[in-house]
Amino acid sequence: MLLSKIFLPLTKDLPTDAKIKSHQLMLRVGMIKQSSAGIYSWLPLGFKVMKKIENIVRQEQNNISAQEMLMPTIQSADIWKESGRYNEYGDEMLRIKDRQGREMLYGPTNEELITEIFRSSIKSYKSLPQMLYHIQWKFRDEVRPRFGIMRCREFYMKDAYSFDISDEEAKKSYNKMFYSYLKIFSKLKLKAIPMAADTGPIGGELSHEFIILADTGESNVYADKKIFEINTNKYDSSEKSLEKMRNDFSSFYAVTDEKFNKSDFDTKVKKDDQISTKGIEVGHIFYFGDKYSKPLNCLVDHQEGKKVAVKMGSYGIGVSRLVGALIEVNFQNNVMKWPKSVSPYDVVIIPNINKNDQKSFEIAIKIYKDLKKQKIDVLLDDVDENMSAKFKKHDLIGVPYQIIIGSRSEENRFEFKEVGENSILLNLEEIKEKIKN
Amino acid sequence: MLLSKIFLPLTKDLPTDAKIKSHQLMLRVGMIKQSSAGIYSWLPLGFKVMKKIENIVRQEQNNISAQEMLMPTIQSADIWKESGRYNEYGDEMLRIKDRQGREMLYGPTNEELITEIFRSSIKSYKSLPQMLYHIQWKFRDEVRPRFGIMRCREFYMKDAYSFDISDEEAKKSYNKMFYSYLKIFSKLKLKAIPMAADTGPIGGELSHEFIILADTGESNVYADKKIFEINTNKYDSSEKSLEKMRNDFSSFYAVTDEKFNKSDFDTKVKKDDQISTKGIEVGHIFYFGDKYSKPLNCLVDHQEGKKVAVKMGSYGIGVSRLVGALIEVNFQNNVMKWPKSVSPYDVVIIPNINKNDQKSFEIAIKIYKDLKKQKIDVLLDDVDENMSAKFKKHDLIGVPYQIIIGSRSEENRFEFKEVGENSILLNLEEIKEKIKN
Repeated sequence: MLLSKIFLPLTKDLPTDAKIKSHQLMLRVGMIKQSSAGIYSWLPLGFKVMKKIENIVRQEQNNISAQEMLMPTIQSADIWKESGRYNEYGDEMLRIKDRQGREMLYGPTNEELITEIFRSSIKSYKSLPQMLYHIQWKFRDEVRPRFGIMRCREFYMKDAYSFDISDEEAKKSYNKMFYSYLKIFSKLKLKAIPMAADTGPIGGELSHEFIILADTGESNVYADKKIFEINTNKYDSSEKSLEKMRNDFSSFYAVTDEKFNKSDFDTKVKKDDQISTKGIEVGHIFYFGDKYSKPLNCLVDHQEGKKVAVKMGSYGIGVSRLVGALIEVNFQNNVMKWPKSVSPYDVVIIPNINKNDQKSFEIAIKIYKDLKKQKIDVLLDDVDENMSAKFKKHDLIGVPYQIIIGSRSEENRFEFKEVGENSILLNLEEIKEKIKN
Repeated sequence: MLLSKIFLPLTKDLPTDAKIKSHQLMLRVGMIKQSSAGIYSWLPLGFKVMKKIENIVRQEQNNISAQEMLMPTIQSADIWKESGRYNEYGDEMLRIKDRQGREMLYGPTNEELITEIFRSSIKSYKSLPQMLYHIQWKFRDEVRPRFGIMRCREFYMKDAYSFDISDEEAKKSYNKMFYSYLKIFSKLKLKAIPMAADTGPIGGELSHEFIILADTGESNVYADKKIFEINTNKYDSSEKSLEKMRNDFSSFYAVTDEKFNKSDFDTKVKKDDQISTKGIEVGHIFYFGDKYSKPLNCLVDHQEGKKVAVKMGSYGIGVSRLVGALIEVNFQNNVMKWPKSVSPYDVVIIPNINKNDQKSFEIAIKIYKDLKKQKIDVLLDDVDENMSAKFKKHDLIGVPYQIIIGSRSEENRFEFKEVGENSILLNLEEIKEKIKN
């Protein structure tokens, strides 16, 4: 893609109303545009990153045999009255009346609707376990939306739901999802730690928040720093390995605000290992048994004859929020570097553009075409401005690899730079090798 | 995927409230489930088909350098008041008040919002042309939603918007989009004919509906049957070819209701060539110049110095509706056959399952594993029921290729059947060849 052709409204000024760096950066490089309070459009650059995150989430959910489907954004109030949450939910629920005067709402989450779908579809233990998920827009009418897409009203979320015949089976589903989340965050190069959490309005007995540490986080977290040393790549999806994984994580203290207890913390964690800081919640998983299946009468025939309420869990990941979280973590000293897996482009070519000497630009075009043929997603900065302005701009756009075509280029070797490291001279084959790893 | 593991709630009974075959089929094979009037959940089978259609649309839009982005579902009423459509739109617009009492709405289309984004981002003719699109849920509060997802309230649509400096340039964008639509429908194996259409509430001067012929269609269409003989694959994306394409299509009479004129029809089309029938609208494109850019003050600097209102077009395709349209066309004599490009699975293996003789099932498993290794998306019917029940079921599910493992299988050759044709005995290599083409 040629930079001059992209719909990429860059702004030079620091947006005054943006308080955290992800919000500032996303506005400055035109990843998003606010359309009303807490509601954003995703412009091409931001959209590309979000879509890549979505696809990683999808792939890892499919890998544990969760099945994708899609529930609508607008729900009937009826099922929320059945579960008892219609009144409970308060003003955060966007309530709507349609032209016939029917009470509707914009789904803030989907426990009720998925339970309704399940109860009318599955009748026997033979069809269990089941795991369903969807990636869909949600709406929570925050009283004070802020921090850009980190605390907005319309947001993009993956939510999954598991259905099992017993608590014991359900915990296996919970562990699978826990594992899938570790894989997702590992692919995003995020160190997200599962912390024992309060179950909040979703309710139930077992819950973990996946938290990344960041000063701008809204959650207070208290942890044994040794939990950060667990190598999450050593687990596989076998039942035994998943149990070990859960035991390993449970052996270290790591909780959010609501579960925090000072004397527990001091007893269980050595002073030197105590971390007490802020974090950003990027995922939340719950096991809540029959909390919804019971009131909604979602029963299946048990092997032993009687009908039982199905045991459920729900599992959320904030897909749009992860874009912001990745910036909070990877935007350091005014330089952004996207992890390769979600970078909007694989590499950017930055030629020195000079009206009197087109040589650098011609070389750049040649390299551009060559890389495109190799299916490398390459951005060519064909804008007529000086190199220092270009470098500043690309410090914000954050493509992790740069090919710089200027005074230091040789006949067949070009300046190649991985953001945050020194540039080196490489030929085109070596550059391709680097990009593809 | 094993059929027994999929969330696929099949129903034996013909749904009594479903009047057209796409609605009936989608309910019977568990592609969708209604959650409230005109609002549906997409279950895994239906979701897979819709996602494949979405990806074809995306690919062809990218091929003409349209850039993907994403606008939110909830919009502020303010911009609709600026354009004057807030009152015009009537009861079909789902109007919402948020907790602060602000007037919001669920977007039925996005001309206002994209114009607002554009006017605050692009200031100069140098950045034109631009083409932006998104694939997002829309809501139209139909007074009488019916025909399943064909005339529902919450629906999935691709809408694109073009921005040009002059009418002449804008028409080139219009032609490109026209071409992209022909490519999309060709990949879906749909004969969709562009028909001169009234511009309706979107307004403007130039408009085409893309219509497929079907008895269950809601549009009346009048056409010269020779227009169906145009080979759409002969055009390329060069300006000259695009002009020829438009001229070729314009040379035959083809209009919907609103533009129909009996004496015109009789003068321009020989009696024998006259088609007057019903059709389903699957796409609609408009050129409307400065209809929105003027009231919304979306101006760019012209090369000659003065500011001009940007010239715009909009281009819609009903992604969710296309699922139904494909069924209306391809579900014949109670047998469904998905086009390969959007089939939920590449092939289904149907073994004769017999408790006393596991041989067929064992062979099936072996073939299943082999095909999966080849990245072929294969469905294995591991359900314990007799073959005639299985065949009936697969007549509805509609996977275009079947491998039948039963009495007629030989040691290394198996019954292979393309739906609608006779089965033949092939070895596994030949079968792979057939599936991959």
